Amino acid sequence: MRIAFSIPELAAIVGARSVEGAHTAPVSGIASLTEAGPDDLSFLGNPKYASEVAASRAGAILLAVDFPGKPAEGQVFFRVDKPSYALALVCSVLEARLWPKPPAGRHPSAIVSPEAKVDPTAFIGALCVIEAGAVIGPGAVLDAHCHIGRQAVVGPDCWLKSGVKVADFCTLGARCRLQPGAVVGADGFGFEPVQGDIRRIPQVGIVVLDDDVEIGANTTLDRARFSRTVVGRGTKIDNLVQIAHNVRIGRQCLITAQVGIAGSTTLGDHCVLGGQAGVAGHLTLGDRVKLGAQTGLFEDVPADGFMNGTPATPFGLERRLVVLSRRLPELFKKVDSLAASLDSAGR
Amino acid sequence: MRIAFSIPELAAIVGARSVEGAHTAPVSGIASLTEAGPDDLSFLGNPKYASEVAASRAGAILLAVDFPGKPAEGQVFFRVDKPSYALALVCSVLEARLWPKPPAGRHPSAIVSPEAKVDPTAFIGALCVIEAGAVIGPGAVLDAHCHIGRQAVVGPDCWLKSGVKVADFCTLGARCRLQPGAVVGADGFGFEPVQGDIRRIPQVGIVVLDDDVEIGANTTLDRARFSRTVVGRGTKIDNLVQIAHNVRIGRQCLITAQVGIAGSTTLGDHCVLGGQAGVAGHLTLGDRVKLGAQTGLFEDVPADGFMNGTPATPFGLERRLVVLSRRLPELFKKVDSLAASLDSAGR
Amino acid sequence: MRIAFSIPELAAIVGARSVEGAHTAPVSGIASLTEAGPDDLSFLGNPKYASEVAASRAGAILLAVDFPGKPAEGQVFFRVDKPSYALALVCSVLEARLWPKPPAGRHPSAIVSPEAKVDPTAFIGALCVIEAGAVIGPGAVLDAHCHIGRQAVVGPDCWLKSGVKVADFCTLGARCRLQPGAVVGADGFGFEPVQGDIRRIPQVGIVVLDDDVEIGANTTLDRARFSRTVVGRGTKIDNLVQIAHNVRIGRQCLITAQVGIAGSTTLGDHCVLGGQAGVAGHLTLGDRVKLGAQTGLFEDVPADGFMNGTPATPFGLERRLVVLSRRLPELFKKVDSLAASLDSAGR
Repeated sequence: MRIAFSIPELAAIVGARSVEGAHTAPVSGIASLTEAGPDDLSFLGNPKYASEVAASRAGAILLAVDFPGKPAEGQVFFRVDKPSYALALVCSVLEARLWPKPPAGRHPSAIVSPEAKVDPTAFIGALCVIEAGAVIGPGAVLDAHCHIGRQAVVGPDCWLKSGVKVADFCTLGARCRLQPGAVVGADGFGFEPVQGDIRRIPQVGIVVLDDDVEIGANTTLDRARFSRTVVGRGTKIDNLVQIAHNVRIGRQCLITAQVGIAGSTTLGDHCVLGGQAGVAGHLTLGDRVKLGAQTGLFEDVPADGFMNGTPATPFGLERRLVVLSRRLPELFKKVDSLAASLDSAGR
Repeated sequence: MRIAFSIPELAAIVGARSVEGAHTAPVSGIASLTEAGPDDLSFLGNPKYASEVAASRAGAILLAVDFPGKPAEGQVFFRVDKPSYALALVCSVLEARLWPKPPAGRHPSAIVSPEAKVDPTAFIGALCVIEAGAVIGPGAVLDAHCHIGRQAVVGPDCWLKSGVKVADFCTLGARCRLQPGAVVGADGFGFEPVQGDIRRIPQVGIVVLDDDVEIGANTTLDRARFSRTVVGRGTKIDNLVQIAHNVRIGRQCLITAQVGIAGSTTLGDHCVLGGQAGVAGHLTLGDRVKLGAQTGLFEDVPADGFMNGTPATPFGLERRLVVLSRRLPELFKKVDSLAASLDSAGR
Repeated sequence: MRIAFSIPELAAIVGARSVEGAHTAPVSGIASLTEAGPDDLSFLGNPKYASEVAASRAGAILLAVDFPGKPAEGQVFFRVDKPSYALALVCSVLEARLWPKPPAGRHPSAIVSPEAKVDPTAFIGALCVIEAGAVIGPGAVLDAHCHIGRQAVVGPDCWLKSGVKVADFCTLGARCRLQPGAVVGADGFGFEPVQGDIRRIPQVGIVVLDDDVEIGANTTLDRARFSRTVVGRGTKIDNLVQIAHNVRIGRQCLITAQVGIAGSTTLGDHCVLGGQAGVAGHLTLGDRVKLGAQTGLFEDVPADGFMNGTPATPFGLERRLVVLSRRLPELFKKVDSLAASLDSAGR
């Protein structure tokens, strides 16, 4: 996957203020300061690693304008305003080269219903299945083995990685990215006890992803019991996350890996949920709510709330409780000692 | 996915005691009271939302016989015995229309071994792979991209959603429903250290799902080391659940999303496990055991036990411990104050 | 899946010191002492189950040389040095028969890019997709529906079960086993807020699995932001595990089901992580670190550390804190009583 950049090419991409040193060979990889070799570009993003620059074997390094060092023999320093941002610019160019958008068309092995509407500018990969009534928007890309159910909609410029499943009637907005194995529109988990048996409650709603949503690998989103399970514009969901039926997630939220959100819960905009957090059903979380990793939330949280622990407690209190709970051995001893003193005093 | 019901049609489906008001257009959606529009059916299932009825724009509303209000202009009230149940009746009709059982047959793209036995009344979807010796029962439906391993058995009237994998030799009873991406029969996680290396323990058992079992999207069930991993009749398992090798789950259990059950553990009938709960290996849980969400269980639980927290504690005690632990700051202060009093008294 | 072994055949496989009793029919299954029938082989691996031998209906039983009992009528006792190990020998033979390596070749339905390099001794299953530049090593086996991305490498003698996805540029060493639905090389979860929006950070690195790695069903491993996400030689990862971008796992680790490891964290060799444990990002764990099930780790751990609980605490302390926290009701009462005594003493 190595792609070569010449030094002048890199200087242009990163908007270098100056280029110091000389490095004739092209740069073909990116690595950290300690791991980079002569073919690699590296960067000093965090000043605490400044001491690693002198020993780095990187062929080229992105550095702040005021970094005091000089390049080693055969090494290039690019002076830039923000090294991390400069690196992201390189990565963006690299990504566009490594993952060029496939040309419009269909792999001949794809099974596309004659009743589906596939925009001629979309790309349908090998062995995809597109059912009757499905709509694939302009510029959309479906990698191999995707399945788009009946009357499901994949919006313009979506990119579905291999093996993504969008079930019947569900809809994706523009520019959504779905990682391999993601499932949009499984049945909600709705059952009720009927005379000792468990009877399934039909799940006839859908899942709606707004524009610019990202769904992680093997993440599952359940269709609503009725109406819609909704993910708001720009929200990013990591791998192996469970979103239950009728959940509504606002805009620009970050939902980290292995989070679970139970049925009918509503999240505001800009919420951030740490990994493996769990949210019970029928709750309401305001805008900008944060949950720490592994938090177990069983109550509503107003806007800007930051909860942690199980059961979830406001962050500051939770931190204090953790500190105090670690002092329990000391507390038990102190109470025993007080009891002994009082006892002897009472004699 | 909108399907139109006329008002008389709906009245018949829900068994309305009476129909009040007039609404000429057909009803084509279902929504909550606050979200419904003139084309939607809504319902008042919980009396605490009664005040929402007057403001609802729903074209038709399911209400209890004794609800005091009157329909707005162009709105219909259906009076029924149980509005929630009436809604489920509508959803059932809707589901049957939205997901009609496909006609018997095979998509020409399916790869079916000549040594597999597929009942002529079964449906095999596009790009499915059915290996030698597999048996697909009468009325079974396999959506696109399913894989049925050698000598695996899919019972009568099972419905496997897209991308389900049933590995070699595993068996499914009648009427099982498997959501997209579910994996039945991955290798159990069995390894033992041998002279500094980790050696794999062969896993030669199978998974057996009894009748009427439901498996969620991307859930995984491991084959037994030997003999069988078993899921009892009518048990429902949600998304992203892990069932390890040699686990035995009883009948009519509810296993919520992201639960993990470690190897060789046995559950009785009618158990209910909350989301993200974890159960250690080689345990025995009696009938009707309940575990709260995120519980971490490391000990046996007798019938009717209700455990919560990590490590799991009987529910009542756990609730009390949570309350007391939040009073730790107060307790530490009180003990300090007692110590000071005792100290000054002792002077 | 039943395969018959004659008694002399079994005696040879297990290296029996002696064979007692007579059983004319072949043995065709393996089961525990309590569940075995006349066609089954069973074993006494743990002396605490010794009393079950006399009542067992097993046709043949593996027993220690010094076990005092005698076989029942029509039953065979195999005397061996280590019954558990003897059983593993039988399972190994059984596994080799039940899962014979498919002959070299490609199923005609597989879509193999003419620019891919597939070793002639490899097996490519039905409906697999192998993209341009991919390399499939000698002896590798890909079951149905696998997807190997552009320039990805599958090493010699790997076995990929159905529906495995290896994304572009990622590489697998020799003899890796990947269970159904595993995803290697999804995008890392990298986003940064830019003026109220969340912008995606391109993820241009890869995933590298060293030799003899095992990946569980529906487990996900993310490609690095740049450079590599690494799993060391011989490490075994269970089902539904999340390995984030730039994580580096050492050799011979055991990562149990539903564990999550956040970005850029490094694990040493021989680490063991219990089920559902979570490890925060940018941490360093030394060799032989152990984490209990459901542990939430937010700090570095030196070699040989054993942590438990959330937030993770050294195991011994954590056990003590759990015991003390269950005595909180008693402690609160005691402090109240001390306060009352002091109060009355002060009067």
